[in-house]
Formats: sequence, structure tokens, C-alpha cells
Amino acid sequence: MPPLILGTGTVGRTLAAAFSALGHEVVLGTRDPGATAGRTSPEPMGGTPFREWQAEHGGIGLETFAEAAGRSALVVNATNGAASLAALAAAGEARLATKILVDVSNPLDFSQGMPPVLNPVNTDSLAERIQRAFPDARVVKTLNTMNAGIMVDPGRLADGDHSVFVSGDDPAAKETVTGLLRALGHRDIIDLGDITTARGAEMVLPLWLRLFGALGTPDFNFKIVRGG
Amino acid sequence: MPPLILGTGTVGRTLAAAFSALGHEVVLGTRDPGATAGRTSPEPMGGTPFREWQAEHGGIGLETFAEAAGRSALVVNATNGAASLAALAAAGEARLATKILVDVSNPLDFSQGMPPVLNPVNTDSLAERIQRAFPDARVVKTLNTMNAGIMVDPGRLADGDHSVFVSGDDPAAKETVTGLLRALGHRDIIDLGDITTARGAEMVLPLWLRLFGALGTPDFNFKIVRGG
Repeated sequence: MPPLILGTGTVGRTLAAAFSALGHEVVLGTRDPGATAGRTSPEPMGGTPFREWQAEHGGIGLETFAEAAGRSALVVNATNGAASLAALAAAGEARLATKILVDVSNPLDFSQGMPPVLNPVNTDSLAERIQRAFPDARVVKTLNTMNAGIMVDPGRLADGDHSVFVSGDDPAAKETVTGLLRALGHRDIIDLGDITTARGAEMVLPLWLRLFGALGTPDFNFKIVRGG
Repeated sequence: MPPLILGTGTVGRTLAAAFSALGHEVVLGTRDPGATAGRTSPEPMGGTPFREWQAEHGGIGLETFAEAAGRSALVVNATNGAASLAALAAAGEARLATKILVDVSNPLDFSQGMPPVLNPVNTDSLAERIQRAFPDARVVKTLNTMNAGIMVDPGRLADGDHSVFVSGDDPAAKETVTGLLRALGHRDIIDLGDITTARGAEMVLPLWLRLFGALGTPDFNFKIVRGG
């Protein structure tokens, strides 16, 4: 069964194209496939209109969240963090049960202006909220600490000499996700521990956003430098 | 005038010894010098009793916060984040006015158990609280994202090939602090911007704590890997 990418924004599209290039059958999930496919205007962040993007990626289908979730063994949540729980609810709890649910989103709250704040924070995380809402899914948090281009092509930066984190309660699910990360080219994959460790991975976003501002480019990543 | 290190814990002592080794006259500030100097039992975290440490570092004096602040041009806040505002108030607002105030602390709140949470968070930071409480001081946030041993000897880790951040509103103060960081051996010093960017540097602590757990050592640091 193909992995499914939830979310048709930059992150979802970038991951979909990369998994497709690796030979996986991929399908994008969206609330209203007709509306998404019919969009001819550029995306809010200046991205290619969906129809153009899809024409360039002929093998990637577009279905409702529920249809797409029903026939995938692995689901990637690449929706906007503020919309993730609703999107996953639309996919359906029963269809997500037992599946690996890779959460790459960030709970950024833009309602108070720029820069966005993180919500939840400290004693909870979006990954934990998803795990609680879908207790039979096997949530693995990863990839949320870097730009989409680096997620799928880590070698473009310092020959891939930087780090990615995984958090989750299910060791087998983390192993599968680690394999996917390796296939994308990630070499330093750090298992932070259970799903509560996603708090740390999510709370790095404010620093990421400030670095984006200071460096003037999103083309950077964290490397955890160790001794010895 | 010598730099002053506020705080006699591991971070304060480590920084004091390093600045002393670089030839600076250093004095430690504490609430009650007699009580601190009289301690013969090990510190809570297993550190050397203060008296033994001081005997090994004969040139480093111990004074009240107020005395020490009065004769230093640069003050380093290396107190426990929860006690920083009180310690700086004891130093005295007038004595801190116009001085460079280097804040290396983290606002960790252990009152809800382990791991600690960060307070404040998101729309405020300890560095900003300090700047607001002492508006005539020139606060520079730095070094809080790494272990004390790496703060003063970055070369022990990957020949110093990792990053340190500075945040602050006063360019000249940041330049002076950048010079001190270079003297300690730091090579990749990233100016995040104004004092509000300290929110990002502080919010990385939960990830730091989880990495400490996952790696089993505090001997690591963040490197910001950039493209080409």
C-alpha cells in the first residue's frame, strides 16, 4: 500500500514527489479534491497552482482524506498544524487505526501576529494531541525541524551532514520511519524517545524562525555535534 | 574593570575560571559571601564545595551582588533562571545601568516535576524580562544553549565546529560580547537580532534536555549547517 501524504501545501507536495521518485505509489489527501484540483491561481505562499503541479507529477493522485487514508499503510500528516486534528478526523479514526502516522507538522499559531507562537507548548505537543485523538495509530514525529527541500534532499546541504529527530511510542513504527528517512538520504537520525519528546522537537521552531530571519534563507538545518 | 559573574553554581564558576585564565580580573557575586564561602558540603548537583573550588582559583574573589556589580563594567548573569531577577535586583538597578549584562541563564521551572518546563515562553523570555526590569542595562543573551564545559572550551567538541547565538538590542554590546566569545574559542557566532529573539534561544532548552537524555551526555552542541 502506498504512503499517503495529507496536505497539499508545499510540504505535502514536496514529500509526495520525493516518495514517488523513490518508487512508492503516493496519493495526496485533501478535503475537497475537486476544489483543490480546480485551483488555477498561485498558492498563498507563492507556490505553483495545484493543477500545474499535478500535471508535472502525473503519477500522484488526489483523493479525499478518507479515501486516501483507507488504502494506505502509512500516513504522513503534512497539513497546517492548526488544521491537523480536523484533517485527521476527516480521514477517520478507524482508517488510521494501527497505521504509522508520520507527523511532520508544527503547531504554529499566527493569530497573535508575527512571529507565530507555538500552541501547545511545554507540557503537551501536537504530536501527543494526535496520538491521544487516534490512540490506535502509531504516531512518529519527525522532519518538522527543517525546510521541506531539506527534508527530501538532505544531501543538498553539507553533503547531508546534519541531524533529524524521531519521537514516538512504537519502536517498530520508528524503525520503519527511520528506513524512509535513510532512503531520503538522512544519515544522522536521533531517536529522542517516546512521543512526549516531540515537545522538544516542536519547541525548536521559534529558533528556526529567528534563524530564517537572521540568515535570510530557509536553507539551513540543525546538526547535533557530539564529542569523541 | 573586571567582568563580574553572578551566580556561584557550575555555570558561574566555569565562566569565572575561564575569564580568569584569559587574564581578566573576575569576581563572583552571591547573596551572602560568608555563607557561600563557608559551605564545605558538596553542591546539590555534586559539584565541589565552594571553599575547595575557591582555594583552587585563588584570584577569584567573592562579594555581595551589590559590591561586585558596583565595580564591574560587564556583568554575567549565571544564576538559576528562577532566581535571576531577584539576584539582579540585589545587585541594584543603578549599578547595572549602562553596563553590558550578559544573560546565559534559562527560565526552567522545575515546580511541575521533570522534565522542567520553560516559563516564560512564546511571547516573552527571561532575557526580555531582565531588559525590562533594568532598562538602562544593555542585555545580551548568549551561551544558554550549551553545557558550561562547552561554553568556555568549544574546541573540545569537533574542534569548535558548532554554533552560538547572540540576541540583544545594543549593537555595541553585542560586538563586545562577540569578542569575548571569540576569545573563548567560539567561531560560529550567529546574531539572531534584537532581544526578542532570545525567545527562540531559550525555547530550544526542551530539545537540549531531551537530547541530553537520548545521548546520555551533555557533551554536545547545536551547529547551524548552511548551504554553499
